[in-house]
Amino acid sequence: MLGSTYGTLTTDSRRARVIACGEQPGPAVHGRTTADERDVSGRPLHADVPDLDRFFRPESVAVVGASDAEGRPNTGITRQLLAWAERVGARLYPVHPTRESVFGLPCFPSVPDLPEEVDLAVLLVADPLRVVEQLAETKVKFAVAFASGFAETGDAGAAAQQRLAETVEGSGLRLLGPNTNLNAFERFRDDLDGPAIALITQSGHQGRPVFSLQELGIRLSHWAPTGNEADLETADFISYFSGRPEVGAIAAYVEGLKDGRSFLLAADRAAREGVPVVAVKVGRTETGARTAASHTGKLTGADSVVDAAMRQFGVIRVDGLDELQDTAALLARARPPRSDGVVVYSISGGTGAHFSDLATTAGLSLPTLSEARQTELHQWIPDYLNVANPVDNGGHPVGDERGRKIIDAILADPSVGVLICPITGPFPPMSDRLAHDLVDAAERTDKLVCVVWGSPVGTEAAYRETLLGSSRVATFRTFANCITAVRAYLDHHRFTAAYRSPFDEAPRTPSPSFRKAQALMRPGKQLSEHAAKQLLRAYGIRVPREQLVTSAAAAVRAASLVGYPVVMKASAPQLAHKSELGLIKINLTSASQVRDAYRELTDIARYEDIDLDGVLVCQMVERGVEMVVGVTHDDLFGPAVTVGLGGVLVEVLRDTAVCVPPFGEHQARAALDRLRGRALLDGVRGAPPADIEALVEVVLRVQRMALELGDDLAELDINPLMVLGRGQGAVALDALAVCR
Amino acid sequence: MLGSTYGTLTTDSRRARVIACGEQPGPAVHGRTTADERDVSGRPLHADVPDLDRFFRPESVAVVGASDAEGRPNTGITRQLLAWAERVGARLYPVHPTRESVFGLPCFPSVPDLPEEVDLAVLLVADPLRVVEQLAETKVKFAVAFASGFAETGDAGAAAQQRLAETVEGSGLRLLGPNTNLNAFERFRDDLDGPAIALITQSGHQGRPVFSLQELGIRLSHWAPTGNEADLETADFISYFSGRPEVGAIAAYVEGLKDGRSFLLAADRAAREGVPVVAVKVGRTETGARTAASHTGKLTGADSVVDAAMRQFGVIRVDGLDELQDTAALLARARPPRSDGVVVYSISGGTGAHFSDLATTAGLSLPTLSEARQTELHQWIPDYLNVANPVDNGGHPVGDERGRKIIDAILADPSVGVLICPITGPFPPMSDRLAHDLVDAAERTDKLVCVVWGSPVGTEAAYRETLLGSSRVATFRTFANCITAVRAYLDHHRFTAAYRSPFDEAPRTPSPSFRKAQALMRPGKQLSEHAAKQLLRAYGIRVPREQLVTSAAAAVRAASLVGYPVVMKASAPQLAHKSELGLIKINLTSASQVRDAYRELTDIARYEDIDLDGVLVCQMVERGVEMVVGVTHDDLFGPAVTVGLGGVLVEVLRDTAVCVPPFGEHQARAALDRLRGRALLDGVRGAPPADIEALVEVVLRVQRMALELGDDLAELDINPLMVLGRGQGAVALDALAVCR
Repeated sequence: MLGSTYGTLTTDSRRARVIACGEQPGPAVHGRTTADERDVSGRPLHADVPDLDRFFRPESVAVVGASDAEGRPNTGITRQLLAWAERVGARLYPVHPTRESVFGLPCFPSVPDLPEEVDLAVLLVADPLRVVEQLAETKVKFAVAFASGFAETGDAGAAAQQRLAETVEGSGLRLLGPNTNLNAFERFRDDLDGPAIALITQSGHQGRPVFSLQELGIRLSHWAPTGNEADLETADFISYFSGRPEVGAIAAYVEGLKDGRSFLLAADRAAREGVPVVAVKVGRTETGARTAASHTGKLTGADSVVDAAMRQFGVIRVDGLDELQDTAALLARARPPRSDGVVVYSISGGTGAHFSDLATTAGLSLPTLSEARQTELHQWIPDYLNVANPVDNGGHPVGDERGRKIIDAILADPSVGVLICPITGPFPPMSDRLAHDLVDAAERTDKLVCVVWGSPVGTEAAYRETLLGSSRVATFRTFANCITAVRAYLDHHRFTAAYRSPFDEAPRTPSPSFRKAQALMRPGKQLSEHAAKQLLRAYGIRVPREQLVTSAAAAVRAASLVGYPVVMKASAPQLAHKSELGLIKINLTSASQVRDAYRELTDIARYEDIDLDGVLVCQMVERGVEMVVGVTHDDLFGPAVTVGLGGVLVEVLRDTAVCVPPFGEHQARAALDRLRGRALLDGVRGAPPADIEALVEVVLRVQRMALELGDDLAELDINPLMVLGRGQGAVALDALAVCR
Repeated sequence: MLGSTYGTLTTDSRRARVIACGEQPGPAVHGRTTADERDVSGRPLHADVPDLDRFFRPESVAVVGASDAEGRPNTGITRQLLAWAERVGARLYPVHPTRESVFGLPCFPSVPDLPEEVDLAVLLVADPLRVVEQLAETKVKFAVAFASGFAETGDAGAAAQQRLAETVEGSGLRLLGPNTNLNAFERFRDDLDGPAIALITQSGHQGRPVFSLQELGIRLSHWAPTGNEADLETADFISYFSGRPEVGAIAAYVEGLKDGRSFLLAADRAAREGVPVVAVKVGRTETGARTAASHTGKLTGADSVVDAAMRQFGVIRVDGLDELQDTAALLARARPPRSDGVVVYSISGGTGAHFSDLATTAGLSLPTLSEARQTELHQWIPDYLNVANPVDNGGHPVGDERGRKIIDAILADPSVGVLICPITGPFPPMSDRLAHDLVDAAERTDKLVCVVWGSPVGTEAAYRETLLGSSRVATFRTFANCITAVRAYLDHHRFTAAYRSPFDEAPRTPSPSFRKAQALMRPGKQLSEHAAKQLLRAYGIRVPREQLVTSAAAAVRAASLVGYPVVMKASAPQLAHKSELGLIKINLTSASQVRDAYRELTDIARYEDIDLDGVLVCQMVERGVEMVVGVTHDDLFGPAVTVGLGGVLVEVLRDTAVCVPPFGEHQARAALDRLRGRALLDGVRGAPPADIEALVEVVLRVQRMALELGDDLAELDINPLMVLGRGQGAVALDALAVCR
């Protein structure tokens, strides 16, 4: 399993590439000395990257609660820690109030009695608080608390965990846990070479499949079992691993996050460094979210917001642990692609058709090989077989060098970035040679070579020895996982090449709009439509010409100022469902219609017992695409901006996309591209294309408003925002704003 | 691997259950003697079920082109056929024009020289036509043609294949192939017990993974490699296998179908028999469809239509061969569920949370266990762990009988139909005992017990010996495949329990509407809107009150007859895009507006050079849900009815569902349930619920029309169909009809 890897991308080359694209590497801050720069919402702008070298490679370790008594659970743990300390070359000190020695090592009654201030203390005691308090007074760098019974058990446990957190806060000590385990101190294989996977899990068992990738020859460098994250959290490990030269990819199993911003900053750091982060995040459903919360006592956040945040910062989200394995392994080891083109090479027309069908469904691009290339391939492949892509060889030639020539010819094609050979099952006279030819060819190319070994057994020599023995061929067991991983690989490199950190441009100080907006806020109230629109105007968002009037005569005067045709709407604070109540009249073209409408609206309001502050007479804006733009608050990420198509139907279809601040124009545009009804903005049935620039600008201005007003703006909903034809802007026809 | 199976559902018990639900078993027809009953479109109403017993278990076999010469491809094939004939106890006759003997057996120069009329002739010759012609004159029952170079190679090959098909048509001979292989004559393991998978593939390699399930202890009974299907097709094997007592499930790899109706009839037969059919069908994308077509020269059909057809007849469509394996294996062996409730039992809170999240996302139902049951479980599981479902044991107890008691208590719960234990990886001190306890418990329950073994290696004894050694535990390798299979299992049993064959109710003779409709058809023309609506009226579909007029004065008279407000539309054959051209005027409330509208419409028509046949004055129907209902023609299935939400946005979102005839009310209703915007029909934003009964009735009447008019009705599009409030019907506001 030694030798080169199918992808070598050193941290340095990654940095160089990112810088070449006009980016600066993130500030090289360590420990807790970060320049405490914050955005206008008060959230930090730089990741706090802890130096965890001495955590993973300590020179000295104390084991508090060490035991060698037969049958005690701590005895097994102590034994495992002893073996680990020996492997990493650390001095180990058992600590126990009554024992003289443990496994022949002299034992110390308490931490203060130790002969040196150790790098790491592993706490096997049921109540770690007292020991953590002692350690916080020393120069000990790290503590690990195994004990459970904290936030995962309810309010009392959460309070105990809070005390642990407060104890380490501001001290030099960093704490892993509580409710964690031995995973960081596992035996890692040291005979494997090449870029490694660093693993972060909030549940030990859930990391086991990725850890056991080592049995397939994939190198693992670290395992951080973060448990309840009273102090050190998933984000800290992402940031730290992003800077480690041996780490090719970070794989994470996440149930909940401690803090949204720290996660974004860590993902941003990984994106700047070009280090892929692949994550399973539980919480697609209520059931999952609730169960996860009860497991480690963390917030799960609204799944749509978490999902959008991961997407914006390039975190690759997968659902299964098998996808986590396969995707992380590929991304850790494969070199950047030379092209996005995928060619399928198959020993069966059926397999080629099936694989291509699934690959194109998943959005991979399968270029048609040039006529010249096809002619070349037909030197070795019968004419009646399809070699355009998929390349169907009708059975890989085994008697001579034709097989290698076919593979080499495909790999030589400039349209090809990835060659995938799906082998549905072992047929040793053919598949053994095919596996060898693929491994050989992969040694001589810088392009990615993938194999799917479809046998359900997986004990065959061609699989276990030839294919897994190569560090340059990426081997999968299912079509689906190969396609998921290759797509993630191409997406990741496209993403990092174009990445510009939104933190660099995030606003630090309030805009002039902020003061105007503050004057309009009414704490605890829902603003009237008219007031909500003033708030939008304060942030430069266009609203229709309109006047608030309190008599029919004033309405007629307003209509001629605003210009016919007009729309009239009842206006009152706390007023919702205006159209259901008949409180909107559209397309009024004359003074008499305006007078009638005024009377009718006030009649309905009286009947419905609504206390109007007047009637709005508004310019009628007819032609355009109706959108919605709104602000929601997420437990984890704070304010988020939602954009979607408007109208009743879309309310039913929930065709919306979320943008998580900070985001720039690029991310806002990408959110629009995720709408299923996106094509409406390009103009359908003869409608002109909509002013997408103006729509993006509104989304960005709403972000600014949400960040500046923060929690004071409990809810904002522009519905509809009428996006006019290209170059003509966008107008907020109605708005709802709730102040806290 | 011997012993009982985790599901035993004999054909008899299935039949009994189906009959209990009020169904009759399909007609017990064999060979080509089917009562040739046809529906009103001329398509058959009964599956033509060939008796393939002597194909799979012949008493005598001829091998035409047999060889024992070193280095000839036919030599290996002959050797394999000899071994197979010996296993099944068949007499084998080599046939070759020049050889005296082959592998010591006397050789015959030609088929007519054989000493008996064999059950099966295997043709290894390059051009099988001449031999097939000879065989068609004999009483030989089956021939298999290996040769390629037929429909998969283009027009000349297709013509040659057509000659083969015509030669066997009407003779007593049935032909498998051409372009097929040895798969039917593989060595099947005969030491495996319980219900088996019967496999049908249109590509030999693609069947390999399912075939190799035998290495995991899953029994395979048959493999039908159908190749180009000049005669015997996938449907024939589905029908035949549905009646075999040893077959628990049918697994199929399908690239294209020979005929839509024969596939539906076969699926109907399987549904009546309660035999699950699990299929991979290539053709999700254009690329896949094209490649598949070039592989075996078959039609792939529009994917949305194939997909709808499979769904209507209960065929379980999966995408990957691994899903095909896992789903077919589960469905073959598991007994019918006692409840749809799924309980997740896990040794880690994280695993439980993750699995539950994915399971509920996929639509599985995870009932919360009763308080009493939770109290019972807390006898053996610490109080702070969640046992509501998922049941987190905090580590399966290994020192005593608690583990078994927990599992038994879960299985005893009446809300539980399926217990799933996801084990992320081997931890032998715990997972070995857990595997044993699960296998033990599964022996003593009639409920389904599933295990996911998440190790990427799969060589562990607990997996290979304990779990795979049990025929009562269903073992998977990934969360996703377990969830896919369990969902298919629950869906299948729900489907068959409620299944009523639409063939029993399919119309045999034309309705009275047909004669009226025929009089309205104009071959080669697009009907005017008015004429198209007459066609709808002929089938009892409501249209607005309307009159076609040719003067402004007549328009005014029509408007007062129709009743104000009215809509006016230009009417001409071949006229499309009326609203884009301004050729529709709505909400006209007075005679003067009608006169103005008439003038404007005729002016525009003159300007656009449109030859009007008049102007339609129509009743205005405003309040309702806009739907579209249409007829399309599919290469494979003939006419199909599409239903979807109306309006511009839906055109963009393509929110439609297809119903493939024959279908009944139940299937039409199910199609509506598949619409993403389905909730609109239930009433949103204060709108009343729509008249779904009337909508379903329109869909059924359109089906009737499509079947009766057949190809003569090239296209029909009702857009919009306004579905009014409950009890008020549905009105076709506009219609487009094209005659062939």
